[in-house]
Amino acid sequence: MERDGHTGSATGAALPAGGGPLPAGGAVAAVDVGGTGTRVRLLPGGPRADAPGVELPAPGRTVGADGIDTGSLLTGLAEALRQERAARPGGLPPVAAVGVGLSGLLGLTADPEALCRGLAELLGADRVVLAADVVTSYVGALGVRPGAVVAAGTGAVALGTDFAKRWVRRDGWGHLLGDAGSGAWIGQAGLRAALRAHDGRADGSATLLAAAVQRFGSPEGWPARLYPHGDVAGRMAAFAPDVASAAEDGDPTARAVWRRAAEHLADTVVAALPTEPGPGTESGPGTEPVVSWCGSLFRAGELLAAPFREAVRAARPDARLVPPAGSSLDGAAALATLVLTAPDRLPDAAPYLRVWTRDGAARHTAF
Amino acid sequence: MERDGHTGSATGAALPAGGGPLPAGGAVAAVDVGGTGTRVRLLPGGPRADAPGVELPAPGRTVGADGIDTGSLLTGLAEALRQERAARPGGLPPVAAVGVGLSGLLGLTADPEALCRGLAELLGADRVVLAADVVTSYVGALGVRPGAVVAAGTGAVALGTDFAKRWVRRDGWGHLLGDAGSGAWIGQAGLRAALRAHDGRADGSATLLAAAVQRFGSPEGWPARLYPHGDVAGRMAAFAPDVASAAEDGDPTARAVWRRAAEHLADTVVAALPTEPGPGTESGPGTEPVVSWCGSLFRAGELLAAPFREAVRAARPDARLVPPAGSSLDGAAALATLVLTAPDRLPDAAPYLRVWTRDGAARHTAF
Repeated sequence: MERDGHTGSATGAALPAGGGPLPAGGAVAAVDVGGTGTRVRLLPGGPRADAPGVELPAPGRTVGADGIDTGSLLTGLAEALRQERAARPGGLPPVAAVGVGLSGLLGLTADPEALCRGLAELLGADRVVLAADVVTSYVGALGVRPGAVVAAGTGAVALGTDFAKRWVRRDGWGHLLGDAGSGAWIGQAGLRAALRAHDGRADGSATLLAAAVQRFGSPEGWPARLYPHGDVAGRMAAFAPDVASAAEDGDPTARAVWRRAAEHLADTVVAALPTEPGPGTESGPGTEPVVSWCGSLFRAGELLAAPFREAVRAARPDARLVPPAGSSLDGAAALATLVLTAPDRLPDAAPYLRVWTRDGAARHTAF
Repeated sequence: MERDGHTGSATGAALPAGGGPLPAGGAVAAVDVGGTGTRVRLLPGGPRADAPGVELPAPGRTVGADGIDTGSLLTGLAEALRQERAARPGGLPPVAAVGVGLSGLLGLTADPEALCRGLAELLGADRVVLAADVVTSYVGALGVRPGAVVAAGTGAVALGTDFAKRWVRRDGWGHLLGDAGSGAWIGQAGLRAALRAHDGRADGSATLLAAAVQRFGSPEGWPARLYPHGDVAGRMAAFAPDVASAAEDGDPTARAVWRRAAEHLADTVVAALPTEPGPGTESGPGTEPVVSWCGSLFRAGELLAAPFREAVRAARPDARLVPPAGSSLDGAAALATLVLTAPDRLPDAAPYLRVWTRDGAARHTAF
């Protein structure tokens, strides 16, 4: 297995050739913390580089009045690791560094110091890279290089960065304030079109109405089912696949919804690119702005990807569209590897990216 | 005071001249039950017709897993009436009939029998007319005659009816599924435009951003302030007056939001009109469809009313636009008066309109 294997498919093109070999025994952990679940991937390094990685699920983060609950997050991870160690002869490999992508880090209150220290203790690591989930998504898609990436699942957010001074977030405001073109946006547009058909209005879609009735029952009951729900965005996004099926079957309303979503996502990622060449941007003479995309919404394939590419090219003919190399978990693994092999390439850029070291003697103490 | 005085301004044009005099002692109660509060108006009748009416507030309805909580609604009303009776020398007049407009009656589970019986006992009445709030709004605006009325406040809903067989609701699906052109819709559009300006995007509005920052603080804090809130629709609608101010000051984005809202509301009310003349519709030969409007959103004045009228006329040149005569509480009072003076004009049309009598001997038992 090549060194790149440590970081998954995300970084085959992204990690620098000059990053150097991993220190012996330098296994890394990648942690992807979401609202509904956490994924942990342990990747062996050094002399055990041939061993397969381990992936295990854990509870997601919870949010209280004070923001992200670090204590319950660490407790859930500790239990997941305990079970995995108990079930695995020989236990788990020691870990030199942890890369963490944390959903909500940009909008919610969090305790980064406590989280990094707790993760380091749980996994025996000396270094932790804590990043917003949009950063791990970015690195998973494009690696550590300048550009802009839009991440679209239930929500939608774009990050433009040069991994130096420029860190630009666009949208990501949630289903009420933004997230234009997201899964929740598509599902909501589909449900609205279904209800307009139910109301006998000319711009409704009978196809979407039939699909929504099959999924949610009689329209009269939809408000009572949706509004008290704790995750209305997720519930609306659950209808996006039905809107995709209707679009694939030629329903014009559904097709228009997906096209408009693609245009919104293209607008969002283009808005994250620098508009003018300058110090620290990638669009100076001789370079071109790089754009990528990621997230579960793009599993819709060409239905979304084709109009997305078209809209990006229309807005920025100079842009180079690069398909995503990997996932956000791949991105977290890449960050963990980089902090061991090429820490100078990771800037301290709170709240987007923070580097924590156990002894506090490294360049970035950050807290 | 003329008999029409019993029902407020709403019904001056609507109650039939042949409705007949109120029975002696026939005071009526009008009750308008909303999500955040309840208004009760007691109007003297018969020999005490000259006495001024009494208006008192009470808690709104609450909604639990089983729908509208009838018990807590009646308890709150009982306490409000007890306080009013204690504070008023001579107490309150006896009431012959109650008219009730209930928010949520069309979408949420409710116990109409228990509510009517409880109201009758609280007020000493023999007859109760229970109606959806859109019906009392309709009657307040237009009286008991065929037509279509759109009610726009935090939400938006239209009712088209002939007070016989035809009862057509359009929209009213709530802020996630519909309510196009409502206060929540306008506030949300304004906040989205503000955040797009914050994100440096060309289609944002710096004016709306400044207004929203003044009201809600730094944009980074908006998601945390809005999403956990129990009444996100009300909170978004609270920004609609700022969008109105920006529009009055010439902000093109804000003006476009209000114009689009007016078009949505016009579409909704036109969709509630019958498209073809026929038995039981008002658009037969020699008649014209009547359209009215009501609700707090129309306090915006010509900013909303002018493009609303224009859009209705464009869609239905044959329609007659009739300004609203009164409020939903006026409508509830009119229904209470009608059930005493001309009960044959009130059909049993559950879930829109139900007539309850204490002895169950009347034409409508309904339950």
